[in-house]
Amino acid sequence: MSERIPVVEKITKANDQVAELNRNRLDENRIFAMNLMASPGAGKTSLIERTLPRLAERFRLGVIEGDLATDLDASRAAAAGAVSVQISTGSCHMDAPMVKQGLDELQLGGLDIIIVENVGNLICPAGWDLGTHKSILIASVPEGDDKPYKYPTMYRGVDVLVVNKIDLLPYVTFDMERFTQGVEALNEGVVTFPLSCKTGEGLDPWVEWVAERALEYNG
Amino acid sequence: MSERIPVVEKITKANDQVAELNRNRLDENRIFAMNLMASPGAGKTSLIERTLPRLAERFRLGVIEGDLATDLDASRAAAAGAVSVQISTGSCHMDAPMVKQGLDELQLGGLDIIIVENVGNLICPAGWDLGTHKSILIASVPEGDDKPYKYPTMYRGVDVLVVNKIDLLPYVTFDMERFTQGVEALNEGVVTFPLSCKTGEGLDPWVEWVAERALEYNG
Repeated sequence: MSERIPVVEKITKANDQVAELNRNRLDENRIFAMNLMASPGAGKTSLIERTLPRLAERFRLGVIEGDLATDLDASRAAAAGAVSVQISTGSCHMDAPMVKQGLDELQLGGLDIIIVENVGNLICPAGWDLGTHKSILIASVPEGDDKPYKYPTMYRGVDVLVVNKIDLLPYVTFDMERFTQGVEALNEGVVTFPLSCKTGEGLDPWVEWVAERALEYNG
Repeated sequence: MSERIPVVEKITKANDQVAELNRNRLDENRIFAMNLMASPGAGKTSLIERTLPRLAERFRLGVIEGDLATDLDASRAAAAGAVSVQISTGSCHMDAPMVKQGLDELQLGGLDIIIVENVGNLICPAGWDLGTHKSILIASVPEGDDKPYKYPTMYRGVDVLVVNKIDLLPYVTFDMERFTQGVEALNEGVVTFPLSCKTGEGLDPWVEWVAERALEYNG
């Protein structure tokens, strides 16, 4: 195993260099970019579907969909009105070269916001800088209130926490206080949006947060 | 990247050799062992908690808990009456040497069934032989009906599919026919147990399946 660590370090270092190039390129084009991460089925694509129409009048949006195997998510994003690019990752997370490929395929000059939808995974995506400006984690109520305790690396590294499927709170065991305590211990004061992509409850503050960031980076 | 593939191959090969040793050791001790895999929050620990008391009169049970960071699951398994060993994986999946470590710590002579609870992840655990006899995947209704299409490697490689949280079917969008079609295309005729760890519905056939396998391997 002795030769393994240098190889991994080499890959990580190359990734970070490409991430830096991605970020410069986004900044030059005054585009605000987010890296959307979550477990499988927490609602990444649903949040994109719900967010796009609410921003479409004010901003031009692009989506880079990282999917293990299919283009199901890219089709859903396109149906919701985004310029959408599909990256078949074949692995457990996206990396900066994949995002670079996505940026190459999009017409950057015409965009204000880019959402990168990462692969459904609460572990692997955490360590990889993609060159985006903000990292968003979607937690999901039916996953349970113990997730911050069990997946600390992911919870520690994000800028924003979306707590989706709050419409299911009456039907599952989820202690919001225990969840919040776990989050705060790892990521004090992290911006949090409890919402339901199904009912639409709580979506407005999230959409406004995105819009404010976009104006900041577009300005 | 040219030197990466041989390193990975070397690790995989070493893993498979340890897996074979694990399997021989389990067989010599007439123990039936399962590898329990799922997304974060799909209900791996809950299924163990629900299954153990129903088997405790007939069999002696051990649990090897693979957790990224905490011993929360090991504590829950121990509270449910299992002999429980905690492995802090620090990575996105369990491997055969971790299971070997678990077997070393358990008193194998006194056990009939061992459940290995893998790390919550629908991608990485798929490729790793642990030396267990059967691979069990827990799907969860609120994850959505598109998961077989999006995580085909995991769905293709398992012997049994548990569909948990069926009590939430009235409250979420989940087309059982679409889900089943996706599963069948990847893993025709896979043994499937729809159930709810919360209400207890559907648990009996699953528990009987485990008991039958245990008798087969103990005999």
